[in-house]
Parts: sequence; C-alpha cells; structure tokens
Amino acid sequence: MHPVRVNGFVCKNPMEVNADDFFKAAALDKPRVTNKVGSNVTLINVMQIAGLNTLGISIARIDYAPLGQNPPHTHPRATEILTVLEGTLYVGFVTSNLPAPARNKFFSKVLNKGDVFVFPVGLIHFQFNPNPHQPAVAIAALSSQNPGAITIANAVFGSDPPISDDVLAKAFQVEKNTIDWLQAQFWENNHN
Amino acid sequence: MHPVRVNGFVCKNPMEVNADDFFKAAALDKPRVTNKVGSNVTLINVMQIAGLNTLGISIARIDYAPLGQNPPHTHPRATEILTVLEGTLYVGFVTSNLPAPARNKFFSKVLNKGDVFVFPVGLIHFQFNPNPHQPAVAIAALSSQNPGAITIANAVFGSDPPISDDVLAKAFQVEKNTIDWLQAQFWENNHN
Amino acid sequence: MHPVRVNGFVCKNPMEVNADDFFKAAALDKPRVTNKVGSNVTLINVMQIAGLNTLGISIARIDYAPLGQNPPHTHPRATEILTVLEGTLYVGFVTSNLPAPARNKFFSKVLNKGDVFVFPVGLIHFQFNPNPHQPAVAIAALSSQNPGAITIANAVFGSDPPISDDVLAKAFQVEKNTIDWLQAQFWENNHN
Amino acid sequence: MHPVRVNGFVCKNPMEVNADDFFKAAALDKPRVTNKVGSNVTLINVMQIAGLNTLGISIARIDYAPLGQNPPHTHPRATEILTVLEGTLYVGFVTSNLPAPARNKFFSKVLNKGDVFVFPVGLIHFQFNPNPHQPAVAIAALSSQNPGAITIANAVFGSDPPISDDVLAKAFQVEKNTIDWLQAQFWENNHN
Amino acid sequence: MHPVRVNGFVCKNPMEVNADDFFKAAALDKPRVTNKVGSNVTLINVMQIAGLNTLGISIARIDYAPLGQNPPHTHPRATEILTVLEGTLYVGFVTSNLPAPARNKFFSKVLNKGDVFVFPVGLIHFQFNPNPHQPAVAIAALSSQNPGAITIANAVFGSDPPISDDVLAKAFQVEKNTIDWLQAQFWENNHN
Amino acid sequence: MHPVRVNGFVCKNPMEVNADDFFKAAALDKPRVTNKVGSNVTLINVMQIAGLNTLGISIARIDYAPLGQNPPHTHPRATEILTVLEGTLYVGFVTSNLPAPARNKFFSKVLNKGDVFVFPVGLIHFQFNPNPHQPAVAIAALSSQNPGAITIANAVFGSDPPISDDVLAKAFQVEKNTIDWLQAQFWENNHN
Repeated sequence: MHPVRVNGFVCKNPMEVNADDFFKAAALDKPRVTNKVGSNVTLINVMQIAGLNTLGISIARIDYAPLGQNPPHTHPRATEILTVLEGTLYVGFVTSNLPAPARNKFFSKVLNKGDVFVFPVGLIHFQFNPNPHQPAVAIAALSSQNPGAITIANAVFGSDPPISDDVLAKAFQVEKNTIDWLQAQFWENNHN
Repeated sequence: MHPVRVNGFVCKNPMEVNADDFFKAAALDKPRVTNKVGSNVTLINVMQIAGLNTLGISIARIDYAPLGQNPPHTHPRATEILTVLEGTLYVGFVTSNLPAPARNKFFSKVLNKGDVFVFPVGLIHFQFNPNPHQPAVAIAALSSQNPGAITIANAVFGSDPPISDDVLAKAFQVEKNTIDWLQAQFWENNHN
Repeated sequence: MHPVRVNGFVCKNPMEVNADDFFKAAALDKPRVTNKVGSNVTLINVMQIAGLNTLGISIARIDYAPLGQNPPHTHPRATEILTVLEGTLYVGFVTSNLPAPARNKFFSKVLNKGDVFVFPVGLIHFQFNPNPHQPAVAIAALSSQNPGAITIANAVFGSDPPISDDVLAKAFQVEKNTIDWLQAQFWENNHN
Repeated sequence: MHPVRVNGFVCKNPMEVNADDFFKAAALDKPRVTNKVGSNVTLINVMQIAGLNTLGISIARIDYAPLGQNPPHTHPRATEILTVLEGTLYVGFVTSNLPAPARNKFFSKVLNKGDVFVFPVGLIHFQFNPNPHQPAVAIAALSSQNPGAITIANAVFGSDPPISDDVLAKAFQVEKNTIDWLQAQFWENNHN
Repeated sequence: MHPVRVNGFVCKNPMEVNADDFFKAAALDKPRVTNKVGSNVTLINVMQIAGLNTLGISIARIDYAPLGQNPPHTHPRATEILTVLEGTLYVGFVTSNLPAPARNKFFSKVLNKGDVFVFPVGLIHFQFNPNPHQPAVAIAALSSQNPGAITIANAVFGSDPPISDDVLAKAFQVEKNTIDWLQAQFWENNHN
Repeated sequence: MHPVRVNGFVCKNPMEVNADDFFKAAALDKPRVTNKVGSNVTLINVMQIAGLNTLGISIARIDYAPLGQNPPHTHPRATEILTVLEGTLYVGFVTSNLPAPARNKFFSKVLNKGDVFVFPVGLIHFQFNPNPHQPAVAIAALSSQNPGAITIANAVFGSDPPISDDVLAKAFQVEKNTIDWLQAQFWENNHN
C-alpha cells in the first residue's frame, strides 16, 4: 500500500489520525545553542507536525546570543509575526525597489519584552540582540506550513556550487578577491 | 481627503508608512486578569497593527487561571498553532460530522511547557489548565490577520437577541427552562 | 497501477473521464426521512461526484419535519446560500466575538417559498420549520466541494470519547450532572 | 461620508448590518417568462444580496420553455452545480483543447428530476429541455458571488460594436454574408 | 517506487531536482508553420517544464500568417498579457453579459511592435494579423501553469461527439443545415 | 466624487472602461539604456495598465549590455518565466535553507535564443550576459500584477537609512570598513 499524499506530504487515513498528528514535544521552552552569528531558529512546520499540512501556519523559537543576530534573510512563502520573550531585539526590514523616495526604505525598531513586530512576506529582515551580556528569546509565527528561509549571505556567497565570482563582483561592486574570500567562509545555517 | 482602503482597512500612502505601522507595544509578557471561566486572550491582529492587513497572520497571549479554561470555541477564518510558556494545559478539538467511526472524534492531549499543538481551521477546540494552584500561559498564532472567534456557549446562549428557546431546547434535548436558565447567565467574553 | 490523486481524491486519467464523473442520480426531488430533531441533509459533495474535486462547490437538499430543525451548526470551510422550495423556515446565524455592541448578534428571518438567505463561512446557524403541520424543503449550496459540518450539540456533548465534564460544566455554567445527562443522550447526525 | 468598499462593493459598518443584508425575497419559486431561445436565468448574486461579498457563492433559478434552452455559455469565474426541479434536461459541456483524443470532448447527459450535474469553471456548456410540451426548472449554484456569464452566440455575433466580419468569417469558416446575417439578429440576453 | 505527485503532476525528490527541471530549449525564436486559420500557438506550460508546477505562470510564442488569426477563444484558468514582436495585430475581447449598456462590449485595438495588451481571465478574445503580406509574432504570458484554451468554433462545432444540431441551430438562430455544414468542417487546433 | 478602489487601485465605472484600460504603448521592441551593472528592466504592471488589477500577471523587457547583468534579486510575490530574444544569458537561482545536501543549491544554465527558464517565487536569481561584444534581450513574465523586486545588494547595502554596519559586518563576516565602503557606493536601481 502506498500512502495518499496531499500537497506532497503523506495524508493519513482519517480513521487512523489521532492527537499526536497535531502535536510535537518541541521543547520550545528550552534555550538552544546558537551558531557563529549568534542565533538559532527552531521551526515547527509540516515536517515536524504532519497535521499542519495545508493549514498555512508554523511557529518557531529563536534564540539570540549576546550580540547575536538572526542575519538578513527572507521567507519566500510567509509573513512573520514575532514577540520578544526575553531580552531586547533591534529588528528591521527593507522595502522593495519601489519608486523613490519609498525605494529600499529601512524600517527598524528596538523591541522590548512583550512587543510585537511584523515582517511582510518576502522582504529582507533581521533581528539583532544589542545586549553584550544577556541572551534574547523570541517566538515567531509564519503564515505557511512550509515558509522556507533564505539567509542572504549563505545563498549568495555559500551556495553549492558557488555563483561565478565575475557575476558577484560586479553585482556587489567589489573586487573578485573579496568575493573569493567571502565564498571561502563557512556559511553556517541557523535553522534547525 | 478620504483614505484608500484595502480589504476594508485603511491603506496608508507608501510614502508615509513607517516602522510603527508594523509594531505594537503589546506587553505580551505581562499576565492578564482572567474572566470568570478563568482565561484571557490578548489578540494582536489587524486592528492593533495596521501593517498586518492582507498578510494572513496574527498572534495572541492566552492566560489561564488555576483550573481556568479558554472554553470551547472556533475561529471561522484561521488555523491556530499554540505553544505553552508556563504551566500545563489539557487541550482538545472535535472533528466534524464525518462518516462514523471518524465522526465527532475528540482528540486531546496534555501539553507541558514548550509543547506545540495545532487546532485546524473552524473546528471546536478548548484549552484547560488542570492545575488548581498555578496559572498557565500560552502563545498562539492564527493564520489570518482577522481570524474571528466564536465562543460556543456565548454565541448559542448569550446572543443578542436570544435565539428562540423552542429551537434551542430541541437542539440540545433539554427542557426549555434549562435553556432559559442558560440564557439568563452573563456570558462574558474572554477576548480583548 | 496506483491512481493519481489530487487534493486527496483520485484523479482519473483524462482519457477515461466521462459524463458520469460529473453526475449523480441524487433524487433531490424526493422527501427524506428526518431524524429526531426533525431534519435531514442530503449533501452532494466530492464524495458523491468525483468531478467536483478542486471546483469549490456542493449542493444539498434539506428536509424539515413539522416543527423540525437543522440544529445550530457550522461549516468550517464554506459559506451557504439557501432557498426555500416548500413551506416556511425561521433561520438565523450569530456573529462572532466582535467588539460590543456587534458581539454575538443574532440575525434571523422568516423565509417563505422562493426566498434566499446566506450563512457566512464558519458562523453558527440553524433553520427551523415553525409549522406544526407541514414539512419544509430547501436547496442549499456550499462554497466548497467538501464543506464539512459541525453540529454544535453533537460535537460538544456527543464526541467520542466525551470531553471532560469538568471542562464542559464550567464552560456552560451548569452542574456536572447536567453535562453528564447531556452526554448520555444519543446525538443523532442529520447529514447523510 | 463616503462608504467603505471591499472588492468594489459597499461594506456596511458592522454596527449597522442586519439580517436583510443576507436576504432576498427572490421569488425563486415562481416561473419566469423565457426569452426567444426559451430560457430565463434568475441569478441571485452580490448585486442582489450585499452580504454575499467575498463569500464565493451565488444561486440561480433557471426556467426552460418546452424545447427551450440555456444556450452554450461559460462562467469565467465559477463552477456550476445544477439540480433539476421540474421536467427533463439534456445537458452537456465540452472540454478544452487538450491533446487528442481528449480534445474538445463533448460530455452530455439526460437529467431527470432530482439529478445533479457539474459544469467545471470556464467550460462551454448548455441545458436543453427536450420536452415539446412541458417546461423544465432547475436550481443552479455557482462558486463565486459574481460568476459572470458569457453567452457564446451573443458575445461572438452580438457584441457592441460588432467584431469584424472578416475575422469571424475565417474563424467560423463561413462566408461573410453568413456572418453579416448572424450579426443582424437580435441576440437576446436570458440573464436577469 | 511510485512517484510523489503534487497537483496531479510528478514532484521529484528535492535531492534529484536540477536546473533542467526549470528549463526548456523551446526554440521560441523560430517561426512555426501556421494552421489553416493562419496561426500557431507554442505554449510552454507545466507539461513542458515540470518545475512550473504550482507556480502559476506559462509563456507562449504565437505566429500569425499574413491575414492569419488566433481565432476567438478563452482561457478558462488564466489572464493573458501579450506583446507584439513582429508585425501588427488587431486584437479584441468581449465583456460578459453585464447589464446594458456594458453588456457584451467589444474592446479592440491595433497593436504595433512593442505594444502590450491584456485579455482578462475567461473572456472571449482573438488576435488578427491585418497585413496581407507580412507575418506577425507575439509573446504571450498566462497566469497559470496550465491555463487551458477553448477555441470557440472548435468546441461548439467540432466537438467529439458533435453537439445536437437542434440545440445549436436554435442557439445560433440558423438553419440546421448550416449547423450540419459547420460540423462537417475540419476544425484544426492551433495549439501545440 | 471619489473613485472606487479595488486592491488599492482605482476601479473605473464599468460603463466608462475601454480598450485603452488594457493597453500600453510600451515600446518593448526598443532597446533601453542599461545601468552601471549593465541591465534595464522595463516592467509593465498594474501601475502602467490599470486593467491588470487583480488579474495576477505582468510582463517585462530586460536589456543586458555586453557583460551586463540583472544582479541577484527576488520577487516577493511572483514566479518569473523568461525567454531569450537576443544573445545568450547565463542564469541561475539558489534554493532556500533546505536540509543538506539540498541546502542553498545553485541551479544554473546557459540560455540561447528561444530558450525558456523559470525562477520560482521568492528565490534569489540573476541573469548575466557573458558576451563581451553583444547585448542580450529577454522577455519575462511574472505571476502578479504587482510582483515587486528586491535587488539584494541595493536592499542590504543601499537602504535608506543604512542598516547598522555592526549588524552587516557580522552577517557577512567582513570588517566594518568593508561594509562602510559598500554602503558608500551608489546602488543604482535597474527597474524602470
């Protein structure tokens, strides 16, 4: 017997569905080890909870080390809404290539515990913990069961195989050896 | 000058939009006073953050008194994903009138801190704090900027004007004086 | 050979599709035996007509015994539009937990033959035949090929297994023995 | 004060909405006078019931004179589901330019009272009353609050201004004077 | 192993996807042989590029012989946007059965090289090359990965099996022998 | 009189709509002057053709100077399909942060005249003209009437006001003075 799939994911026989199909012991209350830019995203999406399939939402805990950041990234299929549980975050997003003077406007805000902020679908955004001594924690929700994440530096400079350094040197208006240096870094993913 | 509206809500001139249109000092870190069934839902939706318009997501803090509950309710336009921040919750939802034996199945789970649970769009669900001494707190996200909430008891027995007691007595298979008694209660809303 | 499925339902090879895939001898002209609350819903959805898959509509005949009702219920995935074929119906729905004074408003109407009424997606609604001597009949259409139906009393008091009577007693502000009595009833489905 | 509009239609202040915004005394039980091809469509859409706005459904009564037809037409924004209330209908639709042998397949069926048939979105379809002595009546529902209707003969030969007869003669492989004759007819609308 | 399918089409394992899944050597720069009404549509949709699945777009080259036309047709699931690469086109579409005087309005335009025109979803439209000596070429894009096309004459007069000539004679207000003559033509498809 | 708006854009009275509302003399056949990275995008969207509103498509001509590029960018609300009219293009996109080994895969292809390539919604992509002597030209279509474009370098290094160089230095693993140098560049938009 092969499984029925909906939207690419297995769809269980309704007679066999149970509460565990809508549940994950995700330990979102527990701090995570952050990566070298100082963050960790623990995303609970349709890969973790099969019952989320087609339902258009997911949730994440984000940990920030002191001075850590969730670096500039986009979600190709979701808007994000975030609230700060612990610490302080400096957050922002940049608008698209609108006609000037609205072009590439950077909207930023310092968020304290309990504040809420919205990152519209597809826009480049980041969160940064400006506190050199204390970690920060946020809960974020995304408007897709499979929102995707594209960390800009990783996708541009850490792709497999690398993008041609000719292309990137001209795109970023730097020397090719700067691109080569960037491409030689280890671009660590912070999504787990 | 009258405002441009999209989806019934004012759409600001792009030149005048700023970070505050995507922000709310919502104090989601602060406990709320619960109502008489022992809960309080603090929902941050498009009414609180204009920038959420059309973006399909909202977030809420839910407080539960000891033995308090967020009573059986539905969201007509959203799926909900919830994580427990403090305490323990007994949660559940009931499936629709599917063919037996899947008809009106009750799926329930005891959630501890950090657990995640999903309530599919439109299904009747509740959360109950089984601890007689400690409050509980959850963060929930909903897949609409205006999800709506229908508390079953309030809508059925507390509507304005009341639904005919003839109709309700037969629907709930009780005497009319039981319906009259139910309709005489004060059905307090827990959504703020 | 396993079948291709779209949206969880079998999708026939286009070469083998024929008119019968879009047809059902549904006998919607024939009266149905009503259940103990005095109604019967004969729904023609994607389970009856495979060709409805992904097309977002279904149709139903509803029979009402004298003084019978289609008791308070919701459709989690559809708006309903209804027209009366025979008799008279007293119909209504209740709005969601909007800010007062719009909160839980009950909108009702007496419908005569040929009248049309709309029940918006996800809202609790009912139809009642106020005539003690004559049955009533309606045709209803729903904006989904699989709209779902949740009869409130059945889902709340007749779920399998039952919801805890502690939870329901507090939610409905009645004694636990009232809940126990309600849960002991036979909650008959009127959807066929 | 100018009105709020959603989707191009006036959206009333929620405080002022009432049951009549979801109601129409449409007299769908009453026979209509049919046009010269022998049919009449009485459509109840968002123009008749403001509360249908955004809700994705509408309903119609269709009257057919003896040997009358609802001639080949499409709904650009809706699937249709139809049930026969009185008489007999010969109905059909034609598939699109699929690869042969599935190309332009004509699927037809004779429908008796109580039968249900589906016309998928955008496909050319018709209903014909083959009975020379008795009228027929159907109720149809459409998956849009504003489905649109395009009667093929009217749009092709009765447009204002006319399409060039050079274009149509070649498209329909007939002489220009046949097109001229067709364009000289009075192409009566049967949608009211 | 059977393949995973999404939306009816095979969905490759993400580990095996490569650039060729998003590519087609479609030769859209090359003239095509036109059919007997003088056109050829070379459509690149999800059948040609598997990676288009769910992404909601496709592209086509259209060739027009001198005095050739892409005859009146609809796309049941897509809006079309077109730009002229070579030659001149006389294009138009007809609105639906709106209330008079907007009913069945014919909107037309002569397009020169570099002009852009839009054909809204589901409306009957055509393009005609008025030049008796030079061919014309256009690039068109459609808002679906599987837009469908219904050539009006082919679907109405060239279906398999034919629609009853009784029905068509009355619908088009012509003699049955005219219908018979039309149905005897060879209705050649111009979509490849 | 204030205008009716749908989706934020003016919706004309149907009685006043004409063919010009669906037309633009866009001169897409004419070469454009390219910017300093060697490209120019001439996008025809809902701002240029009001009749595109809600219809979900737009079209663009892209000019590439010899060795010019349309640098890495995303469309937050659209998939793109592209065909080469003149010259040769080296194109590619990078997948999102999928689990390794599918993480940040770079899919690239050399396109010749007439080839077609797809850039899925929200993914970072570029086109580069590898020919040092000849320009290249493409037509691209996007699955939104207002797709948006985010040029990565411009949004990250050229925003107004600038993103903190502390944040960017850590995100891109370079010295702050490299960021300062990048932020001092003139980031020219190539969308017109």
